[in-house]
Amino acid sequence: MQLTTTAIDIGTSRPLVLLHTDDAEELGAHPLDRVRLEQGETVTTGIVKRTDALVNPGSVGVTEPLHHIHGTVDVTLAGTPKSVRYVRKKLDDIELQADELKTIVQDINTNRLSDVELSAYVSAVYANGLSLEETKHLTEAMSDVGQQLSWESPIVADKHSIGGVAGNCVTPIMVAIVTAAGLTMPKTSSRAVTSPAGTADVMEVLCEVEFSLPEITDIVTETNGCLVWGGGVDLSPVDDEIIRAENPLSIDPPGQLMASVLSKKRSAGSTHVVIDIPYGEGAKVESLVAARELADDFKRVAEHLDMDVSCAITHGTDPIGRGVGPALEARDVLEVLEGDGPDSLRMKSLQLASMLLEHCGVEASATELLDSGAALEQFQRIVTAQGGDPDIDSGDIETASEVKTVTAGRAGIVTRVDNRQLCDLARRAGAPRDQLAGLAIHRTVRESVDSGDTLYTIHAESESKLAEATALSEQLEPIRVRSEADALVERR
Amino acid sequence: MQLTTTAIDIGTSRPLVLLHTDDAEELGAHPLDRVRLEQGETVTTGIVKRTDALVNPGSVGVTEPLHHIHGTVDVTLAGTPKSVRYVRKKLDDIELQADELKTIVQDINTNRLSDVELSAYVSAVYANGLSLEETKHLTEAMSDVGQQLSWESPIVADKHSIGGVAGNCVTPIMVAIVTAAGLTMPKTSSRAVTSPAGTADVMEVLCEVEFSLPEITDIVTETNGCLVWGGGVDLSPVDDEIIRAENPLSIDPPGQLMASVLSKKRSAGSTHVVIDIPYGEGAKVESLVAARELADDFKRVAEHLDMDVSCAITHGTDPIGRGVGPALEARDVLEVLEGDGPDSLRMKSLQLASMLLEHCGVEASATELLDSGAALEQFQRIVTAQGGDPDIDSGDIETASEVKTVTAGRAGIVTRVDNRQLCDLARRAGAPRDQLAGLAIHRTVRESVDSGDTLYTIHAESESKLAEATALSEQLEPIRVRSEADALVERR
Repeated sequence: MQLTTTAIDIGTSRPLVLLHTDDAEELGAHPLDRVRLEQGETVTTGIVKRTDALVNPGSVGVTEPLHHIHGTVDVTLAGTPKSVRYVRKKLDDIELQADELKTIVQDINTNRLSDVELSAYVSAVYANGLSLEETKHLTEAMSDVGQQLSWESPIVADKHSIGGVAGNCVTPIMVAIVTAAGLTMPKTSSRAVTSPAGTADVMEVLCEVEFSLPEITDIVTETNGCLVWGGGVDLSPVDDEIIRAENPLSIDPPGQLMASVLSKKRSAGSTHVVIDIPYGEGAKVESLVAARELADDFKRVAEHLDMDVSCAITHGTDPIGRGVGPALEARDVLEVLEGDGPDSLRMKSLQLASMLLEHCGVEASATELLDSGAALEQFQRIVTAQGGDPDIDSGDIETASEVKTVTAGRAGIVTRVDNRQLCDLARRAGAPRDQLAGLAIHRTVRESVDSGDTLYTIHAESESKLAEATALSEQLEPIRVRSEADALVERR
Repeated sequence: MQLTTTAIDIGTSRPLVLLHTDDAEELGAHPLDRVRLEQGETVTTGIVKRTDALVNPGSVGVTEPLHHIHGTVDVTLAGTPKSVRYVRKKLDDIELQADELKTIVQDINTNRLSDVELSAYVSAVYANGLSLEETKHLTEAMSDVGQQLSWESPIVADKHSIGGVAGNCVTPIMVAIVTAAGLTMPKTSSRAVTSPAGTADVMEVLCEVEFSLPEITDIVTETNGCLVWGGGVDLSPVDDEIIRAENPLSIDPPGQLMASVLSKKRSAGSTHVVIDIPYGEGAKVESLVAARELADDFKRVAEHLDMDVSCAITHGTDPIGRGVGPALEARDVLEVLEGDGPDSLRMKSLQLASMLLEHCGVEASATELLDSGAALEQFQRIVTAQGGDPDIDSGDIETASEVKTVTAGRAGIVTRVDNRQLCDLARRAGAPRDQLAGLAIHRTVRESVDSGDTLYTIHAESESKLAEATALSEQLEPIRVRSEADALVERR
């Protein structure tokens, strides 16, 4: 069928072909079918969207990825892409081969799957799982479509946390310690997606984090490390697309999780990686058994990829550190580097840094590197290289001026500090977009409190956000206080 | 956040809320999150779409279902709808309760689920199956959101075929026989979705098929039956939405299939139903065992709904009748009613009609009703009531004038007549949109042919479509002829 092309913008990055219902009927094209657009030698494929309003009969609307097509095109039905057949195969619980996973990843990467198909992929992987073989192949495929970094040093240290814990900003401290021991650790981190602060958001309080690859190389050459935003270097571009489908369903299947993490590490050129797996009530992994299983699987897949991976199974029930939100976490980080700071953050950073040093075969004491000030000095070099003020100390960190203190309504014992509720509250207060907003947590589990004692402080950059966060805090109970009689035993 | 509403049309029937990326960031709203739009007492919920191009910061775009909202609205994050949690539960392979399935069905019915969520539902049902309990509850929920028909007669006969067989237009013949026996059979049928002709498309060659409910009631009062398009009475509106997600994935999970079929029958007020389950190579159900299982399940679910269901397990490997396409099938139907016609169509119609008569407790011979002309007379009454010409006979049926005859390339035996390939070919020739287009099949399995004997004829309404169908026929081999030596044994 000969149709005239019209460029159209309906806010999608998918190659959609908008056909008037009459033309679609004539062609026998259903919604989400594929059609071929031919113009001389040039053939492009797009996904059908039927409409009565946006194009006239005889016209064909094309979305942004197809805006290079002009004039008259010959439109014919095309088959279903192979990747959709493989998604169906996974729904049938049949193991996928390397080339099949590669095709799926490539089609996701070029936005060739519709939301229905992408979601079926994610659902199939969630419902039927991925074998270790599949996870290995998926990791390679995901890494292959991303940018590949390489470093001069034969040992490149890295870390990752599977997330879900409020605060928990151990990465800058680890990078400072590990690079102070002479290792190379070019750390790329994410910004927050559903949390109140990613490592990149925290570092941005102190210095720049968005750099090009040559700039990153310069920073690493100068300082042995970096603490930059990974989004600028596109290590595993399909990951964002997959997360876009996982988020609304709140699913994060282990095989996909491993492939996402390891593909980024592989693309980043990392050779020795410590993975932090927080577990416990409310964490992503609820039981110790499941955490151990995931750790073993991570190691098996990594082995296949010639990567040395160690896993740290950590307590994921409570927050790590006092602050939740970019500036409040940056203050915690500086305090620890200055030799003070919240114990939970100091201890976890030291433990993970020790693991990483040992894992890389370096005999050095993380505690000594921290307590001697070597780590702080090294951190300041990185901050300077990333355009920040090297002389900043924890006392200089501003936090948002609108403040609400939440106190205990009764005397008793703190029985629970809820990561998810704290994150929701910090986000409602404006984090991570409002850098200075978030929470300061003043109590930890099993502490005794008196009625009227401060539990946590909400910081917000505007009165309205403080009011919103305060309203939410009244519905939630992120820090639970119970009387001594009720604190330790649940009677029923 | 206060934003100003702009009506926007991006060709969707979903209630989408288009936020500029800056505003979405500020709100913490991710793609596919829900937001609440508040205006005084009125609160509406929509699905977030982020865009840089379609709305300015400070504005909020709303799609067609939300076009009633004007002026300034207060936009806040809303939680995930409960139905999405239930979809996730099904992905976790946990049995859903009646109220949970009801919530899912209601949200699909009001277009409240995004494509990602709808696809996850369909994928979860496919991957993890539905228990009988779930299927019963789903059927009730699907039927409850549709229009309910009711009839004076205590016995209301009906039939359904799960499809996949080319030709197979037994319904008009069955309705003619069964109503001639005095039973009530108000038959609503579908148009083709992926096939070359639905029963409604075939009937439309002879009379009108689109009627309002009062009109249908009049036709049934006058003739005991009808043969109308079911889309006009909206018996199970969510079915179309579910099929929209199933089609691109080519999946049709049994539980969902049963719920779709039985919900329509329940809404249609049917009490006694015969369900045709074609099985075999290339059919929807491949094995006799699976067909029997599906039949038993259908009966169990129907029992719970106070519906009497019998299942006919039939041969689904070959076409039924000679014609494929609206006019060509209409001619077959008239020929059988006139006492002649293709044997396969006559025999299958008689068998199913007998089953339905017996099932309804009526002692009457389908063969006698057909051979005496009573069925033809009854059919003519229905055609008249539906605005058609009662005197039309099979010789009057026109077929498309552009014709291409495909002949056997060698002498031998027909080893396979492939339903799917014939359907693809008939659609390529223009069916069902071109009423007169389609195929006439001249050979059946196990027949001997000589080189040059006609296998099938392609009919098309235009030269270009004939050329397209002919080109496709050269790639396919819908009627396979093998030499006697190769016909019965596969050597390898």
